[in-house]
Amino acid sequence: MECGDAVVQAKIRPGMTVGELVEEMGKSGAYNAGSLWHAANIYEEMLRDSEAVKFVGLAGAMVPAGMGGIISDLIDLGHVDVLVSTGANLTHDIIEAIGCSHYHGTAQCDDVMLHDEEINRIYDVYLPNEAFVRFEEFMQGIFSELPGGSTLSIADLLHTIGTRLPGGILAKAAAHDVPVYCPAIQDSMIGLQYWLFDQTHSVTIDAFRDMHGLMDRCFSATRAGALLIGGGVPKNYIFQSMLMTPGGFDYAVQLTGDRPDLGGLSGATLEEAKSWGKITGEARAMTVYGDATITLPLLVAAVLERMGK
Amino acid sequence: MECGDAVVQAKIRPGMTVGELVEEMGKSGAYNAGSLWHAANIYEEMLRDSEAVKFVGLAGAMVPAGMGGIISDLIDLGHVDVLVSTGANLTHDIIEAIGCSHYHGTAQCDDVMLHDEEINRIYDVYLPNEAFVRFEEFMQGIFSELPGGSTLSIADLLHTIGTRLPGGILAKAAAHDVPVYCPAIQDSMIGLQYWLFDQTHSVTIDAFRDMHGLMDRCFSATRAGALLIGGGVPKNYIFQSMLMTPGGFDYAVQLTGDRPDLGGLSGATLEEAKSWGKITGEARAMTVYGDATITLPLLVAAVLERMGK
Amino acid sequence: MECGDAVVQAKIRPGMTVGELVEEMGKSGAYNAGSLWHAANIYEEMLRDSEAVKFVGLAGAMVPAGMGGIISDLIDLGHVDVLVSTGANLTHDIIEAIGCSHYHGTAQCDDVMLHDEEINRIYDVYLPNEAFVRFEEFMQGIFSELPGGSTLSIADLLHTIGTRLPGGILAKAAAHDVPVYCPAIQDSMIGLQYWLFDQTHSVTIDAFRDMHGLMDRCFSATRAGALLIGGGVPKNYIFQSMLMTPGGFDYAVQLTGDRPDLGGLSGATLEEAKSWGKITGEARAMTVYGDATITLPLLVAAVLERMGK
Amino acid sequence: MECGDAVVQAKIRPGMTVGELVEEMGKSGAYNAGSLWHAANIYEEMLRDSEAVKFVGLAGAMVPAGMGGIISDLIDLGHVDVLVSTGANLTHDIIEAIGCSHYHGTAQCDDVMLHDEEINRIYDVYLPNEAFVRFEEFMQGIFSELPGGSTLSIADLLHTIGTRLPGGILAKAAAHDVPVYCPAIQDSMIGLQYWLFDQTHSVTIDAFRDMHGLMDRCFSATRAGALLIGGGVPKNYIFQSMLMTPGGFDYAVQLTGDRPDLGGLSGATLEEAKSWGKITGEARAMTVYGDATITLPLLVAAVLERMGK
Repeated sequence: MECGDAVVQAKIRPGMTVGELVEEMGKSGAYNAGSLWHAANIYEEMLRDSEAVKFVGLAGAMVPAGMGGIISDLIDLGHVDVLVSTGANLTHDIIEAIGCSHYHGTAQCDDVMLHDEEINRIYDVYLPNEAFVRFEEFMQGIFSELPGGSTLSIADLLHTIGTRLPGGILAKAAAHDVPVYCPAIQDSMIGLQYWLFDQTHSVTIDAFRDMHGLMDRCFSATRAGALLIGGGVPKNYIFQSMLMTPGGFDYAVQLTGDRPDLGGLSGATLEEAKSWGKITGEARAMTVYGDATITLPLLVAAVLERMGK
Repeated sequence: MECGDAVVQAKIRPGMTVGELVEEMGKSGAYNAGSLWHAANIYEEMLRDSEAVKFVGLAGAMVPAGMGGIISDLIDLGHVDVLVSTGANLTHDIIEAIGCSHYHGTAQCDDVMLHDEEINRIYDVYLPNEAFVRFEEFMQGIFSELPGGSTLSIADLLHTIGTRLPGGILAKAAAHDVPVYCPAIQDSMIGLQYWLFDQTHSVTIDAFRDMHGLMDRCFSATRAGALLIGGGVPKNYIFQSMLMTPGGFDYAVQLTGDRPDLGGLSGATLEEAKSWGKITGEARAMTVYGDATITLPLLVAAVLERMGK
Repeated sequence: MECGDAVVQAKIRPGMTVGELVEEMGKSGAYNAGSLWHAANIYEEMLRDSEAVKFVGLAGAMVPAGMGGIISDLIDLGHVDVLVSTGANLTHDIIEAIGCSHYHGTAQCDDVMLHDEEINRIYDVYLPNEAFVRFEEFMQGIFSELPGGSTLSIADLLHTIGTRLPGGILAKAAAHDVPVYCPAIQDSMIGLQYWLFDQTHSVTIDAFRDMHGLMDRCFSATRAGALLIGGGVPKNYIFQSMLMTPGGFDYAVQLTGDRPDLGGLSGATLEEAKSWGKITGEARAMTVYGDATITLPLLVAAVLERMGK
Repeated sequence: MECGDAVVQAKIRPGMTVGELVEEMGKSGAYNAGSLWHAANIYEEMLRDSEAVKFVGLAGAMVPAGMGGIISDLIDLGHVDVLVSTGANLTHDIIEAIGCSHYHGTAQCDDVMLHDEEINRIYDVYLPNEAFVRFEEFMQGIFSELPGGSTLSIADLLHTIGTRLPGGILAKAAAHDVPVYCPAIQDSMIGLQYWLFDQTHSVTIDAFRDMHGLMDRCFSATRAGALLIGGGVPKNYIFQSMLMTPGGFDYAVQLTGDRPDLGGLSGATLEEAKSWGKITGEARAMTVYGDATITLPLLVAAVLERMGK
């Protein structure tokens, strides 16, 4: 056991850049601030590694919180090769892309009154029902153009949607040919819309078809890295994709508010992932505990600042 | 604003039953102990309501922690009409049912050494790789009997698996014709096995086919109740199934270790669900924060004790 | 690395005792349920060890939640040799002992309205201001009898208060000559009352005088054990008391809702305490994460049931 | 119920300042990122309000994590009128000020080995025992100069220590005549050193003497604001100081990793504080949940950037 560098008391300078702040966190270097600095080092190395396939897992409700723009910008910058998302994030991405908005609200409110006024709440974000009316119209329009009797994968369906949108995550992913995987697509408003459509049409969405492309990508990867925003299905799906290959992820950064002792995969440590071989024994890996609406912008701003130099 | 009953300091009597302990928690009545007592009242009322359709959502990694037996017993007792689970819980249920075991371990360990010894870790539970060898053999055996060229729903597939198992959640569900929904089935070892099978066979699993039966159940329900063990896809899928109906859940009990302020659905309050109409404005609803390996056995033991009287 | 016993799926039997439930948790044995069973084993061994000095640390707001009765009963049973508490728990203990009550309320309320109605809130517990009127009367009465010009320790003051109360923690501690330490006594309503008294009287409370008795107890202990309910000052004060001795705690059970990664002592692991020598390298030690209003009654009921056999 | 402004997807620009990042968090405006922006607004207004008495509460183990420098700089800038701290933070402040260091370490380590090598661990920070040797020498030197037979307050003692230090929190506080309150001073290494000294000397530290100056400050304050870093004794002591006055705090920002549902004061909402009158019904108040090693530097950097314009 050896001591590392001395802790340096953090210095705040008015007007300092985010990258400079994260450097201060590296010198003070403890708890989650220290972890954030380590995570920035790992994410920078991962982005600079041109041979690494870059996965992003997007759980939680990040788009209603305004974090979708960061993801679509990362795609635009070429920093995402594979995106795995919850259906919720994609639903809200579509809602924003077709011109509807989420609104600032408050978590201290009367939810029965909100319901009467047709406003849906996501913690302190409000989403009026009318957005879902426009969402339905848009989705049914797209679905109705799908060739009858055909069988599609979920990523195919999402790609088709992306090509019809002017901006956002699905649009950027479609434009850059980044596959978007969403294993639990039924579990979202996209799923409910598809159920409506499915009652009178016969286009089959094959639950497993996407796995072939994903697994091929994993088998052919020289190296691989994952940025995991939240846990849930995206984290597990990304990690399990390496279970069948001889290797594992070489880089992993996890931003989560969950905790390990509850046993769930969402809060599981990246160390635990090594026992499964999901990440390699030598992988550079770091978890930052906290709200990703704070840690994600910090991480990305610091790393993009470094990359620009 | 009015004060309710006075808090009574809890009294521990050696040999007291779990039901008696939960009554003490009701009299002291504060924080999560008080919530647990309220949850027991709601769950008891829900189970006694013969017209209520009873949903159970099972997230986390409850089966490796020995909580699967409680679910299969609840099914056996007729207390589950619809089960929604993660693929992980079902994978581990199959592993136990085919005679393999999970083992007590420790979270303070060297995961690289564990990997070398082919032991996978789930917090403080160990699962040797050999279980997955037997799992593969079993799963491929079942898959190979599926009629080539056919299209199945995920619940169909899980029902088929359940009929081949001697015990556990899937077996009991199959025996009692309780549908098991698993929207993200790809995201599990079952999914990986199916990908293997799918490379050389042509049985299509339709991602959306299950929604019809589920939605019909929701539309025809006089009343409905949900026991949510953890969040994730099971919680959202259960709740969203009521979004299209005029009503909502009348009873809801949520056992979670997540927190609301991160904005994710897993930690969202049941109040928030009212704004969406997922549960009714008058619903009896309670969240108990904590590890479900503690709160679930307490809740079920207390309620079954009451039901037995 | 070796696997331990196989996980046994938990079995709920209606009418089972709490001790039987905790045994089931031991057989399933994972996450915090498994930890609770380990904690019960350690706490049982500690209570049965007649040569071990038994410390209890009481943080949080346990008395308003009805958990004070468990502590006073443990004192009555001879299971507490030294109690370290926050001032808040002792304030609320006095309030109950002089005949005032805390009341069941709700955390979903309008706190400004509560303030207008002179009700103070502790999460979902309500405490009307009138309790503090009676508290003031009682405290000033006791203070006025203190010999003018004298110097007392905090434990002396608390002992004096305890002798005037008909029941509760301070009364039982006084009756059994169990010292109650409260290093931050100023930080409580007791402290505010003393400030009022102190404006016109001259009785000095020596902040450090208690440390001599506490340290003597630590130096003379053959073995020592600690039950830590929450963290805060009680946890640290108990642990640091062993820093000057050659040994450390031999038994430690910690019930906490805090988490380690924030770096605070409240959430620190018991492993970390070994680096300081606060607990011995061979100490039997276990942390159970969760709300102590649930884990404390479970632990005590299970251990008292075992002790009764 | 009304919707506020539309959520704007956050935009990361390489080289952006921390203030600009926090503005983006304000426009996206949700969950804890939104709360952080609100907190910055409140803290800025509080610092600009020349008639507001400014309290800072410092709990947790912030100095070992390199956050002490931010506090001493805030004092230097005149932004702190009253500081309430745990004894631990002050102990580690002295250790740094006398030239010893904390070191970067790791939380994945063998604590028994660390103990053998005389290294104490605070999550991922290491502190060699030799620091405590020098600490003892320094503290006993100061104590030995205290006038025998005298009675001092805790703040007097801390002021005296501060005058002998070349830098850090206590030094800056002494230089600027900012009182430092530490109600639980016994509960720290400072306390253990004083116990050593107290065995052979007769200087009395009056536990309650400090309350007079604190309460006078509260009674004479036109307006008051509090920045609470963590909970514990500092938070409660600051808040209770307003209980006896007709008013309450007008500004409050709380940075915490605790949660409300456990009932403890550390995690209690600022709304709850309104029921007690600790903060006024109209107070501007915001809690940011997360690790203060991340949220504190962000908050201070953003607000100092604004103040500099």
